[in-house]
Amino acid sequence: MRVHGAGGWAPEAQETLRRRTRRFASWTFGDEPPADAEVWVGSGFTAEHAARLPRLRAVVVPWAGPSRELVEQVRRVPGLTLHNLHHNADATAEMAVALLMAVAKSVVPRDRAMRQGDWGGRGRASSALLLHGSTALVLGYGAIGGRIARICRSMGMRVAAVRREARTGDPAWVHPVSRLPELLPTADALLCSLPLTSETEGLIGRREIGLLPERAIVVNVGRGPVFDEDAFFEALATGRLWGAGLDVWWRYPSGEPPQWPSRHPFHELENVVLTPHCGGWAEGIDEVRFRDLARLLRRLSAGERTANAVDPDRGY
Amino acid sequence: MRVHGAGGWAPEAQETLRRRTRRFASWTFGDEPPADAEVWVGSGFTAEHAARLPRLRAVVVPWAGPSRELVEQVRRVPGLTLHNLHHNADATAEMAVALLMAVAKSVVPRDRAMRQGDWGGRGRASSALLLHGSTALVLGYGAIGGRIARICRSMGMRVAAVRREARTGDPAWVHPVSRLPELLPTADALLCSLPLTSETEGLIGRREIGLLPERAIVVNVGRGPVFDEDAFFEALATGRLWGAGLDVWWRYPSGEPPQWPSRHPFHELENVVLTPHCGGWAEGIDEVRFRDLARLLRRLSAGERTANAVDPDRGY
Repeated sequence: MRVHGAGGWAPEAQETLRRRTRRFASWTFGDEPPADAEVWVGSGFTAEHAARLPRLRAVVVPWAGPSRELVEQVRRVPGLTLHNLHHNADATAEMAVALLMAVAKSVVPRDRAMRQGDWGGRGRASSALLLHGSTALVLGYGAIGGRIARICRSMGMRVAAVRREARTGDPAWVHPVSRLPELLPTADALLCSLPLTSETEGLIGRREIGLLPERAIVVNVGRGPVFDEDAFFEALATGRLWGAGLDVWWRYPSGEPPQWPSRHPFHELENVVLTPHCGGWAEGIDEVRFRDLARLLRRLSAGERTANAVDPDRGY
Repeated sequence: MRVHGAGGWAPEAQETLRRRTRRFASWTFGDEPPADAEVWVGSGFTAEHAARLPRLRAVVVPWAGPSRELVEQVRRVPGLTLHNLHHNADATAEMAVALLMAVAKSVVPRDRAMRQGDWGGRGRASSALLLHGSTALVLGYGAIGGRIARICRSMGMRVAAVRREARTGDPAWVHPVSRLPELLPTADALLCSLPLTSETEGLIGRREIGLLPERAIVVNVGRGPVFDEDAFFEALATGRLWGAGLDVWWRYPSGEPPQWPSRHPFHELENVVLTPHCGGWAEGIDEVRFRDLARLLRRLSAGERTANAVDPDRGY
């Protein structure tokens, strides 16, 4: 099977991929895919490529969330399938829980105070929420959401999750997204791992934020625009919500720093923990990524079904 | 049963305790215990009290860790038992995990950078450790340690724990403390919930820190002096350890701020997350405390065994 790695791949990465797939794949890398390429790995796939690569049958994005443009692009080519990787689901779920707990325990402001010799947080119950016995609502019951749910349950939280539509075999606490209006008022913590699709954009709008309990915690490791930027900022700035831990944003860096992640000053709020869309990264993650990519390619070469096919009608 | 609440109890607390125990306890509060007091609740118990209260049979500290002085004091009085509360075990275990994850994911420095418009942490795998698949070693397998172990397992960590001596019914991964030298080299994360006793003081000394893997994470929600202050600081400052999350310290506030928690500048290290011994506190925790205290007193009044008796020979 002829595989083309598009864009920039470090020499060591190329070497690792070639070694791990040598029994079933031959590779090319770079900006000029050969005319007989069968699988495209990477970003930058365009209509022009589709026209020039008659034997192409699969596009693989070696990360979790393909862009909507790519999903559209692939959908237009008959017979072409789109695949992604869940190699960073553990890392991303861990980041979600790290943010939840940092917010619940006021870790950042307490650390800042201690660095100034200020023990004011000692014995102040009002700086922390007990998670045990509270309720978590997980938005998106995929590879990441399932892991978040399991960790929250181990802390004695009640857990519910929503997904696009409930599936056979789902636990009883997994609900279709249509039940959000009933579930939001129970959510002491709302944890989002949703991809960005036409259906998830703005899913948590002003009305939905208003349905959350007073002083709920929101965590987002999915995509920023799932939340209404204006209503969400307002709920945090006014103290209507307890706080938020946000790894994903509405604006991404372009140009020189400082680069603010929203048109609102989330970065000035004490009750928000901000991280730079790094949830999926951790030391050693590339090892896991290459292992999972090699497994996916092996299944493609054998004509087997993969667990990583993206449904173009759903966008994930 | 005549119960004396020693020291300062807010009027609402007195009212709550009286209400919750009205079927079996009559209360006095303040600095002057009546001569017929049977149970002492609070701190400040002295030899003089022991001499003046002939009917006293139990001392209850309404928190987790009685001081060594109190343990000694009670041990000298024949027939007197000592009891503590585990009401804050969930909150403290949550703080331990919050610290573990904040350290593993560099939450504090990443948040600080984002507040300056700096996205440098994006896509930088070297700022985070994946906990899934790594090994946690829990020091102290009591109410807190057991909860920490459960949460770590839910994240896909391998977990071992040590306690003073293994007991019948303990899971296979719970070991006597004598096995520390074999276990420490496996511990990617070392989480301490140990009380301070003559046996735990300095338990993790220079040699033990040296046995930890390169770039291990240490979390302490037990008592500071379980760790050798000098060797521990050195291992963090030199980068021998990945980092530490510390809620308990060697020095506590006395006098005016700034009040530093150690004779070494832990508060200047980027790889340490500092909190002011607040793990056991959270909103609503007093409700849990009063509930658990009332249950304990009911068992004492009925002459039943309690799960909260402190063994004076062990000190916890």
